[in-house]
Amino acid sequence: MQRWTIGVDFGGTNVKVGLVADSGRVVRSQVLSSKVFGRPGPFVEGIGRAVTALTQAGGIRISQLRGIGVGAPGAIDCVHGIVLATTNVPGWHRVPLARLLERRLGRPCVVDNDANLATLGEWRFGAGRGSRVLVGLTLGTGVGGGLVCNGRLFRGVSGSAGEIGHMVIHPGGRRCGCGARGCLEAEVGTAAILSMGRRAIRRGAEPLKTLARSAHGNLTPAIIAQAARAGDTAARQIWVQIGQWLGLALASLVNVLNPDRIVIGGGIANAWPLFSPALNHTLDAHAMGIPKRAVRVLRARLGDHAGVLGAAAIVRQELG
Amino acid sequence: MQRWTIGVDFGGTNVKVGLVADSGRVVRSQVLSSKVFGRPGPFVEGIGRAVTALTQAGGIRISQLRGIGVGAPGAIDCVHGIVLATTNVPGWHRVPLARLLERRLGRPCVVDNDANLATLGEWRFGAGRGSRVLVGLTLGTGVGGGLVCNGRLFRGVSGSAGEIGHMVIHPGGRRCGCGARGCLEAEVGTAAILSMGRRAIRRGAEPLKTLARSAHGNLTPAIIAQAARAGDTAARQIWVQIGQWLGLALASLVNVLNPDRIVIGGGIANAWPLFSPALNHTLDAHAMGIPKRAVRVLRARLGDHAGVLGAAAIVRQELG
Repeated sequence: MQRWTIGVDFGGTNVKVGLVADSGRVVRSQVLSSKVFGRPGPFVEGIGRAVTALTQAGGIRISQLRGIGVGAPGAIDCVHGIVLATTNVPGWHRVPLARLLERRLGRPCVVDNDANLATLGEWRFGAGRGSRVLVGLTLGTGVGGGLVCNGRLFRGVSGSAGEIGHMVIHPGGRRCGCGARGCLEAEVGTAAILSMGRRAIRRGAEPLKTLARSAHGNLTPAIIAQAARAGDTAARQIWVQIGQWLGLALASLVNVLNPDRIVIGGGIANAWPLFSPALNHTLDAHAMGIPKRAVRVLRARLGDHAGVLGAAAIVRQELG
Repeated sequence: MQRWTIGVDFGGTNVKVGLVADSGRVVRSQVLSSKVFGRPGPFVEGIGRAVTALTQAGGIRISQLRGIGVGAPGAIDCVHGIVLATTNVPGWHRVPLARLLERRLGRPCVVDNDANLATLGEWRFGAGRGSRVLVGLTLGTGVGGGLVCNGRLFRGVSGSAGEIGHMVIHPGGRRCGCGARGCLEAEVGTAAILSMGRRAIRRGAEPLKTLARSAHGNLTPAIIAQAARAGDTAARQIWVQIGQWLGLALASLVNVLNPDRIVIGGGIANAWPLFSPALNHTLDAHAMGIPKRAVRVLRARLGDHAGVLGAAAIVRQELG
């Protein structure tokens, strides 16, 4: 019997709600604004209405849903489905989200960290398919990570495992949002890329300066990537630096975890051709022979759907 | 029915062979010189004789042994019991050690990396008892590591997982035996400690200089620890530095793996009171709140017996 799952990807800008078939197809989806629906009360109500609308439009009953999976940015008690604290979204502190959604919809609900779920989604439906030990990395404002071993999320003893963005790769380096210095997130997150970009502009980097000006000074990683593609030396160097930091973090993970696959997604992964040569070179120089030969580093495949599909995948893992 | 296991700890100086009761008691043991027995042929023959002697002296038959476990320093194909390459011991290249010992003794044999087995030993019999996700670290000439999840060694896809000594913690730092730069082993292994010690002596550190001279210039980590305890500022600073590097590596592991216990053993761990304050301070500054609250960092308890007991433990894990 064909069954469906609801996957919810709770991001800083949007809340994506998808009706997912067991094949991994997102049958239909809705996007809610995090500004409007980002607080606990409106969130539960918004998801409730979206689920009703999506199932009705799909011609199925809510009782035909396996359940609802939610990926949220921050610290999650995934055993009890409690959002302990969120990053980049205000108003969440010890919210029993699973229970609230279950009460609203009458179907079981699973809540987990968004980067964990993106990795699980890539394992089930994307570039991680068939891997036994998978490391997932999501590059963006934050740098998230996840570990999937033998098809199951590795969560550690309190559900917080996979925080690859907070590996210390540069002792004494940039200050991180977590309070420490030199975390991977502090060195390759969007803020670090923009900081390097602004510095390059101050030094007169071209065409980066011109491109940034034509964007009304609203510098983005995409503009820095565009400048690099257009031959801007300073902009190219920023992506080489990003690749080197990523390569160092991945080398440590390869030596410690001996994975067969590393999958890198998130918006910043769009600059893949600009940073991956330096990443591979640094990884090659720092990873040991045996685990190095066992691993492939791939770009994530699920794109915008990774969060929704991962949230659907965790429902299948946890609730069958 | 009481049963026994043979645990073999193959080190750079000695080969320890122990007859281990299921309680974890080393009933009796023999120590062979690695210089004499360190090559494959003599090794198998030496273990064979030691097992005969130990079982006879214990009043048991070889057929009453569960099997033989061997911890070897280097890269091991633990599925097939093949020593692929050793570190600090010459003459081993793709040696099917398990098969050779099984043929010699008629009992099943398991071979694994020594640091993996030391960690498993601590989990079953020592400071790691009862932990769900255990990180083990062995400090010495090399810096070995092991991961035990839910009572089983985490090996990765080609059996090489747990190489914590080759996490990159200091980009561009000291050259490591593995060829990379800035590995934990390169920064906190015996060679790094001695290099820092010699530098301190050249700068006139006292009483380190005097202590080293009375040891006929044969500087050891123990002498540097002795000098630190006697108030030598430069010597103390060396151990603070060691603690800081360890704290950085452990912070990354805490954030990525969310373990409940970290156990540190090996000869260098004798300087525990000298490096652990800096370790704890650095770990505290770099690990995230949730996983930090879940973890305890403890000194290993099994001392010299860790290798033998770990080798016995893997036999019970693999062969029952």
